[in-house]
Amino acid sequence: MHMSSTQHTFMASHSPRVLSLTRRAFSSSSSLGGVSMIQGASRGIGFEFVRQLLENDDKGHVIATCRNPSASTGLIHLKDKFRDRLRIMPLDLTVESSIEASALSIKETYGRLNLLINASGILSIPDVLHPETTLNKVEKSSLMLAYETNAVGPILVIKHMWPLLKIGGGHGTERSAAVVASLSARVGSIGDNHLGGWHSYRASKAALNQLSKTVSVEFGRKKDPIVCILLHPGTVDTDLSKPFQKNVPPEKLFSKEFSVQKLLSIINNVNSHDNGKFFAWDGQEIPW
Amino acid sequence: MHMSSTQHTFMASHSPRVLSLTRRAFSSSSSLGGVSMIQGASRGIGFEFVRQLLENDDKGHVIATCRNPSASTGLIHLKDKFRDRLRIMPLDLTVESSIEASALSIKETYGRLNLLINASGILSIPDVLHPETTLNKVEKSSLMLAYETNAVGPILVIKHMWPLLKIGGGHGTERSAAVVASLSARVGSIGDNHLGGWHSYRASKAALNQLSKTVSVEFGRKKDPIVCILLHPGTVDTDLSKPFQKNVPPEKLFSKEFSVQKLLSIINNVNSHDNGKFFAWDGQEIPW
Ligand SMILES: NC(=O)c1ccc[n+]([C@@H]2O[C@H](COP(=O)([O-])OP(=O)(O)OC[C@H]3O[C@@H](n4cnc5c(N)ncnc54)[C@H](OP(=O)(O)O)[C@@H]3O)[C@@H](O)[C@H]2O)c1
Ligand SMILES: NC(=O)c1ccc[n+]([C@@H]2O[C@H](COP(=O)([O-])OP(=O)(O)OC[C@H]3O[C@@H](n4cnc5c(N)ncnc54)[C@H](OP(=O)(O)O)[C@@H]3O)[C@@H](O)[C@H]2O)c1
Repeated sequence: MHMSSTQHTFMASHSPRVLSLTRRAFSSSSSLGGVSMIQGASRGIGFEFVRQLLENDDKGHVIATCRNPSASTGLIHLKDKFRDRLRIMPLDLTVESSIEASALSIKETYGRLNLLINASGILSIPDVLHPETTLNKVEKSSLMLAYETNAVGPILVIKHMWPLLKIGGGHGTERSAAVVASLSARVGSIGDNHLGGWHSYRASKAALNQLSKTVSVEFGRKKDPIVCILLHPGTVDTDLSKPFQKNVPPEKLFSKEFSVQKLLSIINNVNSHDNGKFFAWDGQEIPW
Repeated sequence: MHMSSTQHTFMASHSPRVLSLTRRAFSSSSSLGGVSMIQGASRGIGFEFVRQLLENDDKGHVIATCRNPSASTGLIHLKDKFRDRLRIMPLDLTVESSIEASALSIKETYGRLNLLINASGILSIPDVLHPETTLNKVEKSSLMLAYETNAVGPILVIKHMWPLLKIGGGHGTERSAAVVASLSARVGSIGDNHLGGWHSYRASKAALNQLSKTVSVEFGRKKDPIVCILLHPGTVDTDLSKPFQKNVPPEKLFSKEFSVQKLLSIINNVNSHDNGKFFAWDGQEIPW
């Protein structure tokens, strides 16, 4: 039942006839609210963004992308509750055609995006990617995989969604710009790197920061009403941080709920001066 | 004639018998001077480092690595003049086994390295890599290639040469630490990025900066007498800058000779407080 409702969504997004009907239905509504895309939504922080965006509002539409929709049980449950406002789409960051297909589907169904959040990220994968404790353990394959997933993928998502980005959306007040927010990490900061280690992850996040900054310059110059920011969520209790939680004092290990609430408040209050910046969960800027 | 003298060098470095003789001869000399490795020495700034290191000194040994020694005519000419103090070795950054082979050969012949300079880098390659003028032109293949060559390669070189790095060398006074210097670029600075564009190159250099900083933390913590720095050479008249020189005022386009003289002065005066820093040709620190 869960499976089939999700599958129905995918079929709809690939059938031109159904699509154009959906688009018409969608466009004719007068109070659609914002259209938000959360990339990397199967679990962790990305999933929590989807949940809060749907719960906080009674009209915003959310596109949740993930590698494997039929295994994303959290999203499938949410779909039961928010049948009309949640759309689940397959997107693997390492497969550019899946990014392009999502862009096309969003264009045909919604015609725009007001908020794009890149929430995906990898730090460790058993038997594949190990956060390095010393230069001796740095492997080319890990450097390349972390870069492909954490830096290249999110930028390709921004590239393909760019034509869809439009002012609007927000909770309570309308946002004054379309917002692109990518989840970086404080350990991606070069200036703040006093501990070393985690070479592949740190390098990929520093590169993501540079790419996002580069993109923000172009958005700013064209006077597109798009604000492109980077976010550090704090240390958040998710699968990603699990192996490293033992030395984190309990008050510094945030729940997903708390972190995402803080990050959404940054996103909802963003203005053009914030374009290109890197914010922690508490709104403080992080050095590059 | 040039060819055969170079080929002789390679054969020597691959024959264990000749190697052990070379090592003995090398070790028995009392005033060997420093042993410097310049990675990316076929042309441009890397080649000029080789030339100045050989010309400035009458005892230092230089290992010049490049992808294709038999096509590196500049190095072949230098070899005629500095037969005993210059060694040319094949090393392609994208082939890790060639880095390992160089490390082994240097270990067997010299037993140490006092200075390692990563001077290679790519910005544009006809029909392959184009510095991007807009996000629309950003391609995954370019992002990956620039990263592999500009960030991953140099770090793998540092990884494999690490066991060989020893205090010593220098011109005039002995340096107080082994020095690892990697050529970065001001456009790799995130904080200094006001123009945008060149996404692949900028991201790869920001990542190189983060990797070098990460490595420097480990060197510092172990109290290894190794100082790891990043250098911006200025805008230098080489093949790399050629396509972009037309808007550069003549006084801001440096000769290789001038830039390398400045960079060598930074290297020769380095101390442990400089570990992990990013310097321009004039000794000013560049923000991350
Ligand atoms: N948790 C923390 O303490 C913390 C701290 C600083 C920064 N961050 C950053 O915050 C972001 C979210 O982290 P998290 O803690 O929520 O991590 P998480 O629970 O491990 O979730 C990671 C998400 O990324 C997705 N993903 C991985 N590879 C992907 C690919 N190739 N294509 C599409 N999606 C992919 C995963 O999908 P699958 O389910 O398909 O694997 C999953 O949805 C990351 O960028 C992370 O670096 C987290
Ligand atoms: N020139 C400038 O204005 C400027 C400004 C800022 C920073 N930089 C940086 O300074 C460094 C030197 O630049 P340059 O101006 O001397 O450039 P260049 O004249 O184009 O020389 C680049 C060098 O890198 C080598 N190289 C490229 N790919 C390689 C690989 N896979 N394996 C091994 N070697 C490889 C080239 O070897 P082949 O001959 O085999 O191709 C060549 O020796 C670079 O890191 C560059 O980013 C230069």
